[in-house]
Amino acid sequence: MLFYLTQYWLEQLGDSDWGERLSGLRVFRYITFRSAGAAVTALALSWWWGPRFLRTLIRLGAVQNYSDRAHLAAAQDGQSAPPARRGVPTMGGVLIIAALDAACLLWAQWNALVILTLLSVVVLAGLGFYDDFLKITRQNPEGASPRLKLWVQFSLAAFIAIYLWLRPTTSTLVTDIIIPFYKHPILGGALFLGLVITILSIVGSSNAVNLTDGIDGLAIGCTLIVAFVFVILTYIAGHVRFAEYLWVPYVPGAGELTVVCAALIGAGLGFLWFNCQPASVFMGDTGSLALGGALGIIAVLIHQPFILVLAGGVFVAEGASALVQRTWFKYTRIRFGQGVRVFRRAPLHHHFQALGWTNSQVVTRFYILGILCAVVALSTLKLR
Amino acid sequence: MLFYLTQYWLEQLGDSDWGERLSGLRVFRYITFRSAGAAVTALALSWWWGPRFLRTLIRLGAVQNYSDRAHLAAAQDGQSAPPARRGVPTMGGVLIIAALDAACLLWAQWNALVILTLLSVVVLAGLGFYDDFLKITRQNPEGASPRLKLWVQFSLAAFIAIYLWLRPTTSTLVTDIIIPFYKHPILGGALFLGLVITILSIVGSSNAVNLTDGIDGLAIGCTLIVAFVFVILTYIAGHVRFAEYLWVPYVPGAGELTVVCAALIGAGLGFLWFNCQPASVFMGDTGSLALGGALGIIAVLIHQPFILVLAGGVFVAEGASALVQRTWFKYTRIRFGQGVRVFRRAPLHHHFQALGWTNSQVVTRFYILGILCAVVALSTLKLR
Repeated sequence: MLFYLTQYWLEQLGDSDWGERLSGLRVFRYITFRSAGAAVTALALSWWWGPRFLRTLIRLGAVQNYSDRAHLAAAQDGQSAPPARRGVPTMGGVLIIAALDAACLLWAQWNALVILTLLSVVVLAGLGFYDDFLKITRQNPEGASPRLKLWVQFSLAAFIAIYLWLRPTTSTLVTDIIIPFYKHPILGGALFLGLVITILSIVGSSNAVNLTDGIDGLAIGCTLIVAFVFVILTYIAGHVRFAEYLWVPYVPGAGELTVVCAALIGAGLGFLWFNCQPASVFMGDTGSLALGGALGIIAVLIHQPFILVLAGGVFVAEGASALVQRTWFKYTRIRFGQGVRVFRRAPLHHHFQALGWTNSQVVTRFYILGILCAVVALSTLKLR
Repeated sequence: MLFYLTQYWLEQLGDSDWGERLSGLRVFRYITFRSAGAAVTALALSWWWGPRFLRTLIRLGAVQNYSDRAHLAAAQDGQSAPPARRGVPTMGGVLIIAALDAACLLWAQWNALVILTLLSVVVLAGLGFYDDFLKITRQNPEGASPRLKLWVQFSLAAFIAIYLWLRPTTSTLVTDIIIPFYKHPILGGALFLGLVITILSIVGSSNAVNLTDGIDGLAIGCTLIVAFVFVILTYIAGHVRFAEYLWVPYVPGAGELTVVCAALIGAGLGFLWFNCQPASVFMGDTGSLALGGALGIIAVLIHQPFILVLAGGVFVAEGASALVQRTWFKYTRIRFGQGVRVFRRAPLHHHFQALGWTNSQVVTRFYILGILCAVVALSTLKLR
């Protein structure tokens, strides 16, 4: 909005005295300036709304008094698990999404890519909200049925994929997907494969972040790291000369996604302020499904779903560990009568907790691994 | 070293078959590639050397069994302080500096700026080592006398300032210092002021990081954030076209400092792996004096000591809080007979601990504030 306002003023005032005096407003044309503004705004909004929001959650009873599934599983196995904390408000994702959307509406140009991202985030946050709502009212870790959740996620992802393909200006987003360490988009023209990858990257990212959300500060911190990678990648993709220089497909308007990523970082930092150990609030599925979806969609919008797999290596490892654990357990139970586990517990962060790492150690070390993944992901820009 | 080796091979092989096959080695000319390599190498070295290094420290008895000054002060005031942890090895800074220097020697071009930075870091690490050594052998928080420490720091800083001024290619580093939010170097020609600022920025930065080092992971994390800002600033300062576009003085060879900053980030992350709560090792003065000095010197080498004040806002706040606390206490004691404290305890992180924040909360929230400072510092590139 600020972009439109300032540019309107500059146009109206033209060469008049006021036009001269306000010529500094031209700085609003720079994506870098608006990105910094969006990040700081989102952080400030989180700080401002946070305390009041937490009080409201507690007053409304949006509080987690049940044990997590991981705790139940650990208890069943007779393993020692850190005691479940009680009375912590959840649904904190509402705060993230509100600060993110407000900052984006304020600082970004509202092009199709931005609107699509923000709307999808709201839809996924709504799904997560419904899930959290059921969990809270039942005080039970079983929320909405997994089938319903997957169905909504797949529908949304399919809608996005088909919408992008049908619009003439964005159809290449689905068909031309960059493969890391190769120079040219390899999937040129393979429409069906492109649609599948697009859908899987959105659904997979959403669920992987959801699985990662299990220790104070873990999911949001890793999201911040990936969002930072996308600040750089979207800026390059939206800049004709940089895109050409780095052999990346130019996506008109992708620069505005930089503003979205920056706002995401600001909102995420603001949430981390309250979520760091011991958390005063959990993001809940409201947050994790939406954040994961946001990363997946932004990756798709700049031809880079595969980079998301590299940059979000922590999320991938968490998701894969859960999948491997479940599959291998079921397989061995059917085959040998007794289920065998690969990890002490899954997802991966519970495995390291079981190995004796403290919560802080798991979180900090997963951040470090996340940063390493980010460096690898960014190095694909030059290494082909 | 890798730069020299690869370029030597390429030159020797010329247009031969092997020259063709190895043409990918040209990637070693890119500062971005070598920076990523340096960061990953330093991280890998820390992981590799870390466990063995910790065992050696414990075997040699380089272990902190005494209470920190902050704990003593809190106990004297009858305040509750978190119990002092015993038996944690210190002098971990040796690991950081070793990984940093090794990675730099491997990946950077050894120009004067790089050599000067690495040597100064080693000198300050040596000073810190002497301090830590006295503390450990006496098992007492009183190490080397503050006068000796300041004397060494000032001598080193003065040597650097005068050396830079006397060399024709670097004399402007001392005289032309950028003032944030202004377009032109303002201190053009004011030699004496320039020398003072140069010296103060190195000494101040070294001591501020030293004061910040009081909670597991705090000092190293904030150092990482500032180092990241300098990755960007040194890259711009060393790139003719970017420097011109962003109105920053071009410093030939500053691009190699990007490699140094990246190596610092890698080494820092590797150290944080072991230093995160509960720390398996402290950096000691060996680490904090050297890291602070490194940031100060790099800032000086790209005309940006004032940006360091912005980007290192957390360090500034920590240093200022200690200064204000001590000064005001002494003043009020002389003036009114009874010393009055501004903060519950100083430096600042102890104040927030006394307010009831957990260690994790102090560290995470100081990181968030550090990132905010970094954004402000980077925004000076565009806002003038």
